[in-house]
Amino acid sequence: MSLRPYNGFGRSPSMWPAASKRRPASRITRWSRRLLSKPDAPDECLMIERPNPFTTLSSQIVWTCPWYRVRQDEIITPNGEAGTYNVVEKADAVWIVPVTIHGRIAMIHQYRYTVNDWCWEIPAGSVKTGQTAEEAAVEELREEVGGVAGSLVYIGRFYLANGICNEVGHIYLATGVVLGEPHHESAEVMSIHLRSIEEALQMARTGMISDGPTALALLLCADMLTQPIQDGP
Amino acid sequence: MSLRPYNGFGRSPSMWPAASKRRPASRITRWSRRLLSKPDAPDECLMIERPNPFTTLSSQIVWTCPWYRVRQDEIITPNGEAGTYNVVEKADAVWIVPVTIHGRIAMIHQYRYTVNDWCWEIPAGSVKTGQTAEEAAVEELREEVGGVAGSLVYIGRFYLANGICNEVGHIYLATGVVLGEPHHESAEVMSIHLRSIEEALQMARTGMISDGPTALALLLCADMLTQPIQDGP
Repeated sequence: MSLRPYNGFGRSPSMWPAASKRRPASRITRWSRRLLSKPDAPDECLMIERPNPFTTLSSQIVWTCPWYRVRQDEIITPNGEAGTYNVVEKADAVWIVPVTIHGRIAMIHQYRYTVNDWCWEIPAGSVKTGQTAEEAAVEELREEVGGVAGSLVYIGRFYLANGICNEVGHIYLATGVVLGEPHHESAEVMSIHLRSIEEALQMARTGMISDGPTALALLLCADMLTQPIQDGP
Repeated sequence: MSLRPYNGFGRSPSMWPAASKRRPASRITRWSRRLLSKPDAPDECLMIERPNPFTTLSSQIVWTCPWYRVRQDEIITPNGEAGTYNVVEKADAVWIVPVTIHGRIAMIHQYRYTVNDWCWEIPAGSVKTGQTAEEAAVEELREEVGGVAGSLVYIGRFYLANGICNEVGHIYLATGVVLGEPHHESAEVMSIHLRSIEEALQMARTGMISDGPTALALLLCADMLTQPIQDGP
């Protein structure tokens, strides 16, 4: 066992897309610096590294579709019992909080077939093969709300459902967004709505936003969104 | 099309477990009233009801395991194209923010085989057949940290990954928790750690908590956790 900087994720930081800032808006500079310095910094949160306590005996893909697949592993649990572990393998995805040049948040009201429900969401989508998470964020912002951002800041990453699935969600804050013509796929049924920052945060805090990643993204950006604009350091 | 109270979810409120309060702690009474009144109340957020815009031609289970299954539907998209929609069907789950009688949060450091990573989490688990979400919350609190709550308050519900899965997460705030002996299953590898409220919230805000539902649950409880104690109405 050895000590290592704990960054909340077991993968090497180099495997994650680089945190990026492009033409940062002054109102978010201080905050983004604080947050962005966190994942890779050798900070005070040193944890004892603990290895994978399971033994994997075999591994095979047992079901697949174009969007995800199920891997089935035969394993030995830490206390020596034989068992089976199924893992839904899915590509990473991105969620983008889009703040327009007029200081409003572009939200989507979208029908989700999986849950037979209309959900309030922010632009989001999977990272395609060969794309970085940042490229996916730029693309989804353009496709879903026709948006082009003045600044894109990496907020953080999280597991959506780590009990069954390996999907990682990356959160971005896009500011200075100019809206244009969206390009929706045939299975995407959605309308775009502008909300004030306070309205959007209130929707997240009161449970009106049923999409967990959207609510989490807005709440993680809350302090940045409501801080007064600060010019310079 | 008709107008209906919008509560963020398409299912009838009667299908959800009743929001519950038992021996409420005075510090959370005002907040819980405000939050609990939201989901079912005919509030200002009236939305035009919009039906399922897809047509389902057929539906079959194409893969299954004891914890979830994949349903494959042949569909017609709203613009008339034929297609296939796969839905991971999984039982609802619960996440419980446990505040001890000493005002600390009982957190779990858990190995997650699906992502080969150690994650900071709060007690959580699936709702078993025949259980209500509240019963599952009581059981998971006891199993994972040996906890018995003085008060259990329903905070809200969210979809974990509505692009592929129908799983709903229910969030509870447990206060006045007395800790005891946990009962972990063989595939659960975890240790229990007490954190101050401020430390736990800071872990959520700075990305140290990689489990999305845990971070969301803590942030949704943030105002309740940091409000000064108020006695009486």
